[in-house]
Amino acid sequence: MRRNTVGVGIVGYGVVGNGVVKLLRRKRAAIRRQAGVDIEIRRIAEREPARCRTSSVPSALFTPNMQDILDDPDIRIVVELIGGKTSARQIVTGALSRGKHVVTANKALLAARWGEIFSLVERTGATIRFESSVMAGVPVIRSLHEGLAGNNVTAFMGILNGTTNFILTRMEQRGVEFQKAVEEARKRGLCEADPALDVDGHDAADKLSILGSLASGQWLPPENIYTEGIRHLAHDDLAFGREQFGCDLKLLAVYKRRGSRAEARVHPTFIPGDHPLAAVRNEFNALYLQNDTAGPVMLYGKGAGQLPAASGVIADIIAQARIVAGRAAGDLRPPVNSSRSLVVVPMEEISSSFYLRFSTVDRPGVLSRIAGALGEHKVSIQSVHQRGRPDAHGVVAIVMATHTTREGDLRAAIRKIDAWKSIVRKKTVAIRIED
Amino acid sequence: MRRNTVGVGIVGYGVVGNGVVKLLRRKRAAIRRQAGVDIEIRRIAEREPARCRTSSVPSALFTPNMQDILDDPDIRIVVELIGGKTSARQIVTGALSRGKHVVTANKALLAARWGEIFSLVERTGATIRFESSVMAGVPVIRSLHEGLAGNNVTAFMGILNGTTNFILTRMEQRGVEFQKAVEEARKRGLCEADPALDVDGHDAADKLSILGSLASGQWLPPENIYTEGIRHLAHDDLAFGREQFGCDLKLLAVYKRRGSRAEARVHPTFIPGDHPLAAVRNEFNALYLQNDTAGPVMLYGKGAGQLPAASGVIADIIAQARIVAGRAAGDLRPPVNSSRSLVVVPMEEISSSFYLRFSTVDRPGVLSRIAGALGEHKVSIQSVHQRGRPDAHGVVAIVMATHTTREGDLRAAIRKIDAWKSIVRKKTVAIRIED
Repeated sequence: MRRNTVGVGIVGYGVVGNGVVKLLRRKRAAIRRQAGVDIEIRRIAEREPARCRTSSVPSALFTPNMQDILDDPDIRIVVELIGGKTSARQIVTGALSRGKHVVTANKALLAARWGEIFSLVERTGATIRFESSVMAGVPVIRSLHEGLAGNNVTAFMGILNGTTNFILTRMEQRGVEFQKAVEEARKRGLCEADPALDVDGHDAADKLSILGSLASGQWLPPENIYTEGIRHLAHDDLAFGREQFGCDLKLLAVYKRRGSRAEARVHPTFIPGDHPLAAVRNEFNALYLQNDTAGPVMLYGKGAGQLPAASGVIADIIAQARIVAGRAAGDLRPPVNSSRSLVVVPMEEISSSFYLRFSTVDRPGVLSRIAGALGEHKVSIQSVHQRGRPDAHGVVAIVMATHTTREGDLRAAIRKIDAWKSIVRKKTVAIRIED
Repeated sequence: MRRNTVGVGIVGYGVVGNGVVKLLRRKRAAIRRQAGVDIEIRRIAEREPARCRTSSVPSALFTPNMQDILDDPDIRIVVELIGGKTSARQIVTGALSRGKHVVTANKALLAARWGEIFSLVERTGATIRFESSVMAGVPVIRSLHEGLAGNNVTAFMGILNGTTNFILTRMEQRGVEFQKAVEEARKRGLCEADPALDVDGHDAADKLSILGSLASGQWLPPENIYTEGIRHLAHDDLAFGREQFGCDLKLLAVYKRRGSRAEARVHPTFIPGDHPLAAVRNEFNALYLQNDTAGPVMLYGKGAGQLPAASGVIADIIAQARIVAGRAAGDLRPPVNSSRSLVVVPMEEISSSFYLRFSTVDRPGVLSRIAGALGEHKVSIQSVHQRGRPDAHGVVAIVMATHTTREGDLRAAIRKIDAWKSIVRKKTVAIRIED
């Protein structure tokens, strides 16, 4: 293999495995250009023959035997995507023992076997990365381990399970009870036939185990984490919390360092409505971290899904492939055209809707003249509001919202209107509205 | 020097320089343990003699001459913290030319000299890191460059200047006008005597230049960015936006890829009240990223301040020190005690306030019996609410909020109350409240 080509073996061709293979193949040239390494999928191990019948991947790449991946000396990175704790454990420990680097998204395995896996990492010098094990493609593992390196993470609170956050959001916004919200989550593909892992908090506890182990530097076994789900909650609880206490109800994973010990717990929690976590709705996840130096940091995004999960796996593969190719993992190489600058679209070509505030004299006919000038320049008015009485100088504010309009057209209209000194008394204020 | 010891030179001993030196010295042993490298400050260059008179740092470390840092072969990492674009440029290009790695927080220099700096990086093989140049210690650079590696970042919107976000938050919440809000920001040390760089949007434009260059792979010069500040906004605009459109007003840095070109602009923008960026208040910053794979990702935190800025600088130094010491930058080494697990505090010892919902028969005396049982177990009631009428079975909900209480005490009280089968008809629901 060429020096810059790094061989990868994928174990498990389910939903996430499919996404990883699809993206690695589609983006191969872009990754080579941006990251300076060529990532080649050498083998995909999948036991289920039906899954291997696909037109997009050459059938010669498939093997039913995961041992083929471990035995191939040209495979330097093993990507474990079968899940579970039995075969997955064999793959991860087998690969590390052979000095192969490992990427995995398997939160249950990491949480249950942290000590064993990291003893192997220490002995063999191989590395393991697991960005997708918590919050999928949102880079929380990197942030905790590298971005906040040198920080003492003293506490964190996380919404780490998208299914339960969706259920709680539905219960609050639609006024429905738990069972009905579960059915809606199921219809949207957000939960398994048996939602127990999600709604009883075990998925969040596995993720808390990983984050707590990273934050503390000691293994936090999931069975030591107090874990309470959301089955017993009623819509009334959410409504009461909102009305009486101004609080939102979230299933939180909580970690708080206390001397040599730590609090570690998963349970429904009321948080103040102005806390950044309160704005995390539907199937979104977020992690709010406290530490001794950087100030509070929050990361927010999708915690599940084929492409989000594949995104984190691919970022890990790229980091390890750079190590294999003898480059620093996070070393910023210049883009090819570092001296050619990006062409910026002129503002006149931008389109958005606008908020407009005109300061005019309070006289009949003013509004129709303004509306006429806007119309001439193809600016379409969505709504008009006049507020308050004239000020001491007889000036009133006319406020409008426009439909989407070309900025060049809007500027021309305002130039014309602001030139009417007899009726317009101050420069018109125009503010873009982002939808 | 010992193999694992990496020499660092600091240029500039102002506010951030002070923070970096203080933290590196205080945390030296912890960094050695966690990151596997020993970081030694070999020299601090500072021209201002008054700044060098400090009891905490040996005076022999100081030099007025930054050339001493460039000439010391044992200094492998140069940390530029003087700001400005003249001497800072000499330091950065001088260090890279000598093959030394560079850490900088200098957004203005990076934005103005992107092409020159990265041409040097390409030629010399030295690396440059600049996490603190945007959003201080919040790992946005890493996330964009490494965490989302393999993603095509198609658009982002950022609240990248804390001073203006504080001013807008004040104008909205306190109903004050721009000038008064600026004075409040000044009182809190959030802006310079001349707030122009902040309030006219230039600071945000420099940061947009850096993020846009990273996202596009081409230099986005700040002078090509349309830049509009917040001086012309009135409290009325914020009030109107809220009342009429349900929108919040933010100074946004906007990037949108459009084919081979991109939109790049800084201006006040109305965003819907339920957008994650709308919940970013006061001096906080946030970056909301869109891409082709991971789904929307947001990072949130403090964008300025001595320790937050020092945090990002130190994370960069650690990453480069690992490269110098021959280790992979982001490689996760196991904590020393990977097999000894973290001791978790028992739930009985946790303290928090509680929301309680009792399902009782609708009969006089019930409330006083419940309150009595809580009192016996040292649970202090903050408020009591009874909601609605009895249901078909004659059951009513009594809702309470408690003051902070030991979980063990609360559980004992509820066990007792739930045993009163004649008056309590369902298991009591207890939900923790996080303040």
